Amino acid sequence: MLKKIVIVGAGMMGSAMSHPAAYNGHDIRIIGTPLDADIIRFARDTGAHLTMRRPLPQGVRFDTADALGEAVTSADIVLCGVSSFGVDWFADAVLPLVPECAPVLAVTKGMIDMPDGALVPFPRVFEERSQRSLSFNAIGGPCTSYELADHRHSSVVFCGNNPKILRMLKQTFETPYYHISVSTDVQGVECAVALKNAFALGVSLAIGQIQREEGDGATLAYNPQAALFGQSVREMSRILKIVGGQPDNIVYGAGDLYVTIFGGRTRLLGTLLGRGLPFDQAIERLQGVTLESVSIARRTVRAIRSLADAGKASLSDFPLLMHIGALLDGAVDIDVPWRAFETDDI
Amino acid sequence: MLKKIVIVGAGMMGSAMSHPAAYNGHDIRIIGTPLDADIIRFARDTGAHLTMRRPLPQGVRFDTADALGEAVTSADIVLCGVSSFGVDWFADAVLPLVPECAPVLAVTKGMIDMPDGALVPFPRVFEERSQRSLSFNAIGGPCTSYELADHRHSSVVFCGNNPKILRMLKQTFETPYYHISVSTDVQGVECAVALKNAFALGVSLAIGQIQREEGDGATLAYNPQAALFGQSVREMSRILKIVGGQPDNIVYGAGDLYVTIFGGRTRLLGTLLGRGLPFDQAIERLQGVTLESVSIARRTVRAIRSLADAGKASLSDFPLLMHIGALLDGAVDIDVPWRAFETDDI
Repeated sequence: MLKKIVIVGAGMMGSAMSHPAAYNGHDIRIIGTPLDADIIRFARDTGAHLTMRRPLPQGVRFDTADALGEAVTSADIVLCGVSSFGVDWFADAVLPLVPECAPVLAVTKGMIDMPDGALVPFPRVFEERSQRSLSFNAIGGPCTSYELADHRHSSVVFCGNNPKILRMLKQTFETPYYHISVSTDVQGVECAVALKNAFALGVSLAIGQIQREEGDGATLAYNPQAALFGQSVREMSRILKIVGGQPDNIVYGAGDLYVTIFGGRTRLLGTLLGRGLPFDQAIERLQGVTLESVSIARRTVRAIRSLADAGKASLSDFPLLMHIGALLDGAVDIDVPWRAFETDDI
Repeated sequence: MLKKIVIVGAGMMGSAMSHPAAYNGHDIRIIGTPLDADIIRFARDTGAHLTMRRPLPQGVRFDTADALGEAVTSADIVLCGVSSFGVDWFADAVLPLVPECAPVLAVTKGMIDMPDGALVPFPRVFEERSQRSLSFNAIGGPCTSYELADHRHSSVVFCGNNPKILRMLKQTFETPYYHISVSTDVQGVECAVALKNAFALGVSLAIGQIQREEGDGATLAYNPQAALFGQSVREMSRILKIVGGQPDNIVYGAGDLYVTIFGGRTRLLGTLLGRGLPFDQAIERLQGVTLESVSIARRTVRAIRSLADAGKASLSDFPLLMHIGALLDGAVDIDVPWRAFETDDI
């Protein structure tokens, strides 16, 4: 059955989701946040996405935030396309408008840390905030917006509490190139995919460290990158266990980590930190952009520290995460704690 | 205490191991196999390695296979530096010469499949073949010879049965850049690191498939690569479970997979197969070189098929491995079974 799908937030990932939805013939509207005015204007004029630089599917309608009330209240599915920095706005401005029968599906990746060290994924945050019996679902797994818009094969996972709704969402968005697993392990899936942002910073430290030791023209360093990759998978698995997620869902974190490291601002920041630049100066070089990876890393570091204070985790199980935490706190001239990664099961 | 270390096989990886050993001041001899005569001659003339194109440490002595008897019988440690194709030669020509007190440490990665589907790692194969109470140990983890020779940070794991010998080997080879974990899970470690060769073929299929669909100039495909990477980790974990390995040791396979995909002949072969070239023609393009990845993939496919025949495994748990198997059997015009990768834990 064809659905009215309202995508709230005209960022690249939310907008790219119009591709599989349009492929299946659904009725799609993209409503910008108050920060998306330029993107909406450009899309109306050209049919293309301003920052993704690709055409959007025929028939998709674009509106500014003024249309929120009218669009959302008549939606069959509300897709939350805001970044983690837009979560509060979405909870305050959009959730009250969502009809009871319309599931929310979020592309937003992230978690909030609680004073007791608990890590709460966004679907749970929305549940808390809305105080209504809406269905909150989220998308995890490695998927760049560019390649989704290019109809390249992408494998993702939809997670949520309600099996029937998950199956309906899968049916709505699945195409010959967009492959959807389903899982009720919201905590595990969201934790794995959020953490990859923090650990992508860690893996790219190796690139910077080699440039520092061998000069700007140094070839890429695979051995140290692979060591940090393996250690990232190890620490992510440990956190997955702490939050009570299914161990198998580490594959979404590992796949997502693999794809995140190839490029983008998180890799650049990790490289700069690896070169020995203090965090403040590295962020300045990135022209002060606020990175989700920094935010999720800070939150995870705080959570593990809180758990350790309460005797529920051991900091020595997370040497790479603690190293990332120290760098974000401004530490310089500290080496990657290679020796602390060694294991001994004898 | 300084040791007499005899490296048998003058390939790149065996020869690169002279770096951490020389760093710690040990007495090192590299003895070529009968196929290594050119490498030995070049090393004697120049002090450098012919194919790795890097200097070898000062003081290392080089000899042809004629010196095997004299060198090996007086060794404190024998490092097996042959590739998986040299295992039979090593077992026949070298093992009878090894003194009882000298542990064997192998860089060779691989496993043999038995008719009942058992996958037997090389240290166990050596045990069977030698019929002597020697200590067989092996090195796993992501480590390219080039970067080891460049003293870049590398994290590996030494595995074997005897904790005391493992600690001695670690002390002998550990340097500020070569980091060694130790494990008695020989089956798990060797399985994880051998499998990465098979699955690296699988991940690189994505590169070829995009070139086939979008033309030679297509940009790299991250979404499909990441999907295949995640599926590889999932299937490797399942095999690790079947062979009775520690689940945590998947990190060595994942790290090693990450580094193997970046380049080399396995990636090239996977790319050609992904473009739709029949296996025979793809191997011809590679000038007929025999790849360890092909050998380990064939063995693993055979093992899982045997286990499935005996009702001890389900082929549907290994869609990517079975796809690789079909390609190696000469299949063409078959698509990556994306849909079979989807999971549903509802």
